[in-house]
Amino acid sequence: MSTESSPTPAYRLPRTGIGVDTHAFAAGRELWVAGLRWEGHEVGLEGHSDADVVAHAACNALFSAAGLGDLGAHFGTDRPEWAGAPGVKLLAEAARIVREAGFEIGNVAVQVVGPFPKIGKRRAEAQELLTATVGAPVSVSGATTDGLGFPGREEGLTAVATALVY
Amino acid sequence: MSTESSPTPAYRLPRTGIGVDTHAFAAGRELWVAGLRWEGHEVGLEGHSDADVVAHAACNALFSAAGLGDLGAHFGTDRPEWAGAPGVKLLAEAARIVREAGFEIGNVAVQVVGPFPKIGKRRAEAQELLTATVGAPVSVSGATTDGLGFPGREEGLTAVATALVY
Amino acid sequence: MSTESSPTPAYRLPRTGIGVDTHAFAAGRELWVAGLRWEGHEVGLEGHSDADVVAHAACNALFSAAGLGDLGAHFGTDRPEWAGAPGVKLLAEAARIVREAGFEIGNVAVQVVGPFPKIGKRRAEAQELLTATVGAPVSVSGATTDGLGFPGREEGLTAVATALVY
Repeated sequence: MSTESSPTPAYRLPRTGIGVDTHAFAAGRELWVAGLRWEGHEVGLEGHSDADVVAHAACNALFSAAGLGDLGAHFGTDRPEWAGAPGVKLLAEAARIVREAGFEIGNVAVQVVGPFPKIGKRRAEAQELLTATVGAPVSVSGATTDGLGFPGREEGLTAVATALVY
Repeated sequence: MSTESSPTPAYRLPRTGIGVDTHAFAAGRELWVAGLRWEGHEVGLEGHSDADVVAHAACNALFSAAGLGDLGAHFGTDRPEWAGAPGVKLLAEAARIVREAGFEIGNVAVQVVGPFPKIGKRRAEAQELLTATVGAPVSVSGATTDGLGFPGREEGLTAVATALVY
Repeated sequence: MSTESSPTPAYRLPRTGIGVDTHAFAAGRELWVAGLRWEGHEVGLEGHSDADVVAHAACNALFSAAGLGDLGAHFGTDRPEWAGAPGVKLLAEAARIVREAGFEIGNVAVQVVGPFPKIGKRRAEAQELLTATVGAPVSVSGATTDGLGFPGREEGLTAVATALVY
């Protein structure tokens, strides 16, 4: 049996996805990013949930890879049972939905863009938590914008994510 | 013949690509996004074509994955035959160029970032049209920016895309 | 021996990564982007190195795919031996670190977002240099923002990258 006549079956071919999420800083909120509470900041992120941009971007990337829509489609205002749910809970549910649709999850990678929190200080903790949540490797990294744009003005955070599913 | 001695041939390994596209809103233009005309908005997107950020970002992601440049290289001002071409027509041509260069297309995933249109309302229609255009799965999703940046000020839309080719 | 009983080994499955980098323009600096010096511009990019957003975003995408952090973790202010290092040198080191951790590099794709330089004019040169630096295909492309946001105001450049590792 030659491998030429037995190509890798199509269902093993990965599909890539892209996800973005942005939330504004707001005074008097706890700051939750990458599933963790970050102490020592005077602002958190505004939203009807914990506004965890990392978890939300990861959800969007998984849904995107699977062609299953986005956060709004699954956890939007017409789904009040998810109102206020922590990002990690949404991410676990997103992974469940993607698997239920017949996909395996390869990995998810998220980069936070903004002035703080300093992801590097708790990267291992964040990656372990999100990897356990998704059931596949999740990497988390950070970048600043050199003072430019809304992240540079400390108005909010954005996160960009990509994911592979099979 | 063991599979250990017959690894998957290199040409089956995927290559990933990234694509971004941004256009400003302008009064008196039709709004075309993801290959569809969106009614009920007072503005469209400015450009020498329909300025369909989803189709354009998808083109950029395909060219990027294949190492073949970008929209400007293939459909720029020095190629007047493409001036004003609809985004879907450019996307079909981009897919043709990528295949002509010897690549298969795995999938394309695009997320629109901006206040409107609400992609979720017509996601199935958009995904069917773009998937037929590319000849491979295209997913479309949406995200807002919580009022931040130029999308938050309703100045324009951006779209971010990724693609896999083989 | 059937291929059904011999699935592609897990280590052949790719992992995707995402990387972003942003730097502000500053007068009196040389403009280095994608490993090349671009003449004829009155501004360069500000940073403690050459601030080459393409090389930096590519580093971030490689680290992200491998789950190994980001530029700040490897070349930050606590690693003074890398202060001022050219982007291409950082990129070569990032590729070395990723391989040392046991990964093969599939490819890297970077898109620069901003008004200039015009990547298309020197794409082949940039791609050859960066491909040789990484030891795997690197594609470079460009996009403008139609005058929007900080790239549109010519305040700086951002680059977005994705990478596959095995």
